[in-house]
Order: sequence, then C-alpha cells, then structure tokens
Amino acid sequence: MKELLIIAHGSRRASSNEEVVQLVSKVAQEENPGVDNVALAFLEFAEPTIETALEGCLQRGAEEVVVLPYFLSAGNHVVKDIPHEVSKVQDKWPDKTITILPHLGASGAMPALLAQSS
Amino acid sequence: MKELLIIAHGSRRASSNEEVVQLVSKVAQEENPGVDNVALAFLEFAEPTIETALEGCLQRGAEEVVVLPYFLSAGNHVVKDIPHEVSKVQDKWPDKTITILPHLGASGAMPALLAQSS
Repeated sequence: MKELLIIAHGSRRASSNEEVVQLVSKVAQEENPGVDNVALAFLEFAEPTIETALEGCLQRGAEEVVVLPYFLSAGNHVVKDIPHEVSKVQDKWPDKTITILPHLGASGAMPALLAQSS
Repeated sequence: MKELLIIAHGSRRASSNEEVVQLVSKVAQEENPGVDNVALAFLEFAEPTIETALEGCLQRGAEEVVVLPYFLSAGNHVVKDIPHEVSKVQDKWPDKTITILPHLGASGAMPALLAQSS
C-alpha cells in the first residue's frame, strides 16, 4: 500500500486550515492519484502533526509514503523542519520507504498551471 | 494587449524571491499563456511592488491585466491587501480592465496537480 501525505504549513485561522482539508479531500477523489490513500498533516498551528499523520499511514499498513510539502518556496520549513520531522518517524520504521517530494512551488507542472490560469 | 501579473508574497531571503523570478520566467516561456506578457510583483520584502508592476503593465499598453495571487490560502493578504493595492491603480486607470483571479490554492487545477505529484 502506498500513501500520499500532503504537509501544509497550518494557520491560526481555522478557515485557512479548513481550506486545505477540503483541497486534500478533492485530491483523494481524483481518479488516478497513483496511491491508495491521501493524508494531510500540518507543520504547526493545527493537527494532525507530521509525526502523528505519518505514524497513522504506517500503522494502517502503508509500505511506502510519499510526502508532498504544500509550500511555495524552499524556506527553512521545507529544507529543515519537514525533513527533521519525517526522519524521526523513518528512524522508528526503518523498513518502510518514506520519500519527500520537491515542494509544490518547485513542481515541474507549476509553470503550465500558472500560464493556464489567465 | 493582455498581461498576466503574478503576485507573490515576497521574502527577506533573496533565494526565495529568486525562485519566484525563475518560475515566472518559465511561465512566460509556456507555449500558450493566452497573454502577451507575464509580469511579477511582490506584496512585501521585495520589488517591484504591486503598484509599480501594475503601472508598468498599463504604461506599456496593456488594455487588460489579469492578476494572479501566488498564495496558497485566502488570508488577509489575498482578501484585503492585494485588492487594496490593485484598486489604487484601477482608480488611476478607469478605462483599463484589471481582474483579480482566485488565489493559486483555490485553482480548480490544484487537486489534479497534487494527485499527479505522487
């Protein structure tokens, strides 16, 4: 089983977190996500935490988890904080494959998405 | 002439701003952006400002500018600050058409992009 874990920053505003929850729900409904489940975690200000969400993926049987940082730029959160949180869980589950994808802003599909928006 | 103006938050880190500059350059190179030019502005911490960039679009002859907030959630920057800055310029150029698109996180194409990332 393979899961996609989307990590958002999280906000003090509940409406902002809810916006991400709704988005992830739509991602899960996409026809061909290439994964068996889509999960969500927040880096701060909201739950579940990265550790809790990632543990959840593994405990329900995921052999592989692909982590997508839902961030637009490669700041400390992307470069340090997310890898740090992920590595804590990886250390506890050495036989599982956990891969961190490039952050959203670095997605190769982003230029086309922006170009088509107009 | 129609221009697309992408508005990023801006960062104190030059590398983060440069990342957006490079992205916008790629957007401009896309085959069919549906616009004649793609411009970039920063809300804060970097230049050009929204006012400067938008004035630039209009002064070089754009009849229509489509503004895309490069933001993931609908916080105050999206709901208040960007419309406020845009309206200042619209007031000076009442005959031009300036439209603010939904912020990137609300793009209808986002769920598929996230689903395909895995």
